[in-house]
Amino acid sequence: MRVVRAEIIAIGDELLYGQIVDTNSHWISQELDLMGVKVVRKTTVGDDRKDILAAFASAEARADIILITGGLGPTQDDLTKALMAEYFNCPIVENVAAVKAVKEFFHRRGREITPINELQGHLPSCCTYIPNEVGTAPGMWFERNGTYWMSMPGVPHEMKKLMTDFVLPKLPTLFPVPIIVHRMIKTVGIGESWLADLIRDWENALPSTIRLAYLPSLGHVKLRLTGFGTDKIEIENDIQKQINFILPTIEKYIYGYDSESLESAIGKLLTVNKKTVALAESCSGGYISHLISSIAGSSSYFQGAVIPYHNQFKNEILHVKNETLTSFGAVSEETVQEMSTHVRELFNSDFGLASSGIAGPTGGTDEKPVGTVWIACAGNSFVQTKKLQLTQDRMLNIQLTAVAVLNLLRICILEK
Amino acid sequence: MRVVRAEIIAIGDELLYGQIVDTNSHWISQELDLMGVKVVRKTTVGDDRKDILAAFASAEARADIILITGGLGPTQDDLTKALMAEYFNCPIVENVAAVKAVKEFFHRRGREITPINELQGHLPSCCTYIPNEVGTAPGMWFERNGTYWMSMPGVPHEMKKLMTDFVLPKLPTLFPVPIIVHRMIKTVGIGESWLADLIRDWENALPSTIRLAYLPSLGHVKLRLTGFGTDKIEIENDIQKQINFILPTIEKYIYGYDSESLESAIGKLLTVNKKTVALAESCSGGYISHLISSIAGSSSYFQGAVIPYHNQFKNEILHVKNETLTSFGAVSEETVQEMSTHVRELFNSDFGLASSGIAGPTGGTDEKPVGTVWIACAGNSFVQTKKLQLTQDRMLNIQLTAVAVLNLLRICILEK
Repeated sequence: MRVVRAEIIAIGDELLYGQIVDTNSHWISQELDLMGVKVVRKTTVGDDRKDILAAFASAEARADIILITGGLGPTQDDLTKALMAEYFNCPIVENVAAVKAVKEFFHRRGREITPINELQGHLPSCCTYIPNEVGTAPGMWFERNGTYWMSMPGVPHEMKKLMTDFVLPKLPTLFPVPIIVHRMIKTVGIGESWLADLIRDWENALPSTIRLAYLPSLGHVKLRLTGFGTDKIEIENDIQKQINFILPTIEKYIYGYDSESLESAIGKLLTVNKKTVALAESCSGGYISHLISSIAGSSSYFQGAVIPYHNQFKNEILHVKNETLTSFGAVSEETVQEMSTHVRELFNSDFGLASSGIAGPTGGTDEKPVGTVWIACAGNSFVQTKKLQLTQDRMLNIQLTAVAVLNLLRICILEK
Repeated sequence: MRVVRAEIIAIGDELLYGQIVDTNSHWISQELDLMGVKVVRKTTVGDDRKDILAAFASAEARADIILITGGLGPTQDDLTKALMAEYFNCPIVENVAAVKAVKEFFHRRGREITPINELQGHLPSCCTYIPNEVGTAPGMWFERNGTYWMSMPGVPHEMKKLMTDFVLPKLPTLFPVPIIVHRMIKTVGIGESWLADLIRDWENALPSTIRLAYLPSLGHVKLRLTGFGTDKIEIENDIQKQINFILPTIEKYIYGYDSESLESAIGKLLTVNKKTVALAESCSGGYISHLISSIAGSSSYFQGAVIPYHNQFKNEILHVKNETLTSFGAVSEETVQEMSTHVRELFNSDFGLASSGIAGPTGGTDEKPVGTVWIACAGNSFVQTKKLQLTQDRMLNIQLTAVAVLNLLRICILEK
């Protein structure tokens, strides 16, 4: 079966000047991948006529489907619509349905339409108008010589709605979609090369129809298995057989599979075990609570948190003894032990978690340099602590502390 | 003066399959932009020999400097080094200094070196070895026919160190760097098209040497002014003149300029006014505390927070009256009023902030649908509240709540 090749073009000076991160291309990649459409290239070009037209032409030479984001705003620096009209050699005309939709969009929000917004309903005559229900810039669909084009706004939730409602359901009607299956094994608490050493023999013995990739990210390593074939169930079974084979070797590092995040895996573990958690976050400043509460349904196991950022409140609200703070310091095993046990009592939860450290860039000493962090997990009859020696970078220290605390909770739930 | 053209090539199936976000290209863009080097294209290709070699060739035809990230890991799916050797037609040989550095890297961490890691010290004979002090994959520098190439690992902090220590200082020695000046005006609390309407006459009257771009992001709109010329001071003055001209029209929406974030702007406002803040976060679950505490030095004005995620603790820890919770509900003006005033007292802070809402996807009612959020800011003799009607998306609601709360604090600091 022929591979369907997709190309993503993101348009906007702000993407090349580095003023915003292009999260759209990433999301589109994920969705196409799940359908077995192969993204062969992602290209970002600026608000420049020649560069945009060149990107259109080279994409048309390579791809079956071309997805374009950005450059559709109402303001004058946005060129995409005019250049698509030029590229496809057709005039921009008023599209009655599109103008009506823009007007209704403003009406629903109780706002006056501005003249430049009304112009967003004028489209190249050779495109199919694709309604954008959550914004003012319409989607535009083009077809030429067996290549399909979709132009979408750069605003992420508008692009996603157009992809979900229109593009993704449309693709299987245009192409015979091949069979590719991905499975992701998600590990925490082990580095990439140690993991690679653990599983090298297994990796070398994988059949040629299954590819393995290591995807390291902050404090995690993901193993992606990609299977190719003609029968979905058969590929899934082949991959599962390989996972079952390596499982005993790496099971203790695995927190989940596929789209599971560490925080959602922990949510499931707490739910299944009917346990609750509360947090006392110092150096992590609320980031772990944010991760936990970002999961829908977390209110059933997340009791709450105290962030005693100023030391005085480690005593006043969390009742860490002043002697402990004076004798051992706020960044100490003794302090996080008290923080975790006391926050557990305060919120009447099964587990209490604590972090205290020197996030940086200042505040370090010879004895406790920047990046020194103590974490703790308290339960019914235990407190488990761990010292981390992290980096010079404040944000990295916050993120790595969060991964370590969540992993400590995971281990405590599983072992206790 | 000739424009120096850069191209960024990111390598890795995981980037095309959408399994990780490429933050590297974004960061590189920012740094090059600050130096006046024009990034003309960003390209992402997979772990595929033909595609990678094609990307090398087309970049070489366009760019003066080519920055390559990824594909340098110790594992078998990483191809960059072998393909650079092929492209430049030179063998891979042991580089004594590089092997030594890899060994020392492991030694410093008290770990045994693995055989595949040792191979990371073998490099194409035609490249210059650039030491990577924070990882095991070396940087590689190539020069051919006036085009310069740098290959770096995909791990963000390793790439950043190589860029900062080697590439960025090297560029001005290779090229006459042109003069481009950017200024960013950062606004909050006004939508893109309203802002565009407010400043249209000014925008249309801008001189041809200054370009304006609208960069909308969650709850913010940034205005980027880009000036071109031959004298840096002169360009800066021209831009400042334009800013001064439009300032009275939009001043109340501006929280900062250039790399200022809303949370860092608020940090400065609090510091200058010698004020402190504490938070009671319900629906935002710690995210606002995280934003505030992500700023270095925030411990001087951020007293702490309580996250009473379960309603019981809105009463038990924050002393919101049970009658208030029963009569008006947790998501109500009355509740956030009490939360903000009580958290202010609890932490003895100048300002107390509160959020309570239905983040979703479930928990909505006809009267209070998903996306209903109440926020409050309490001070010495006032409580200012605001109702938000946000989206169906949990994460978006958390993020938009954070922007609204921070903006409310900004307004309160300025007005009180």
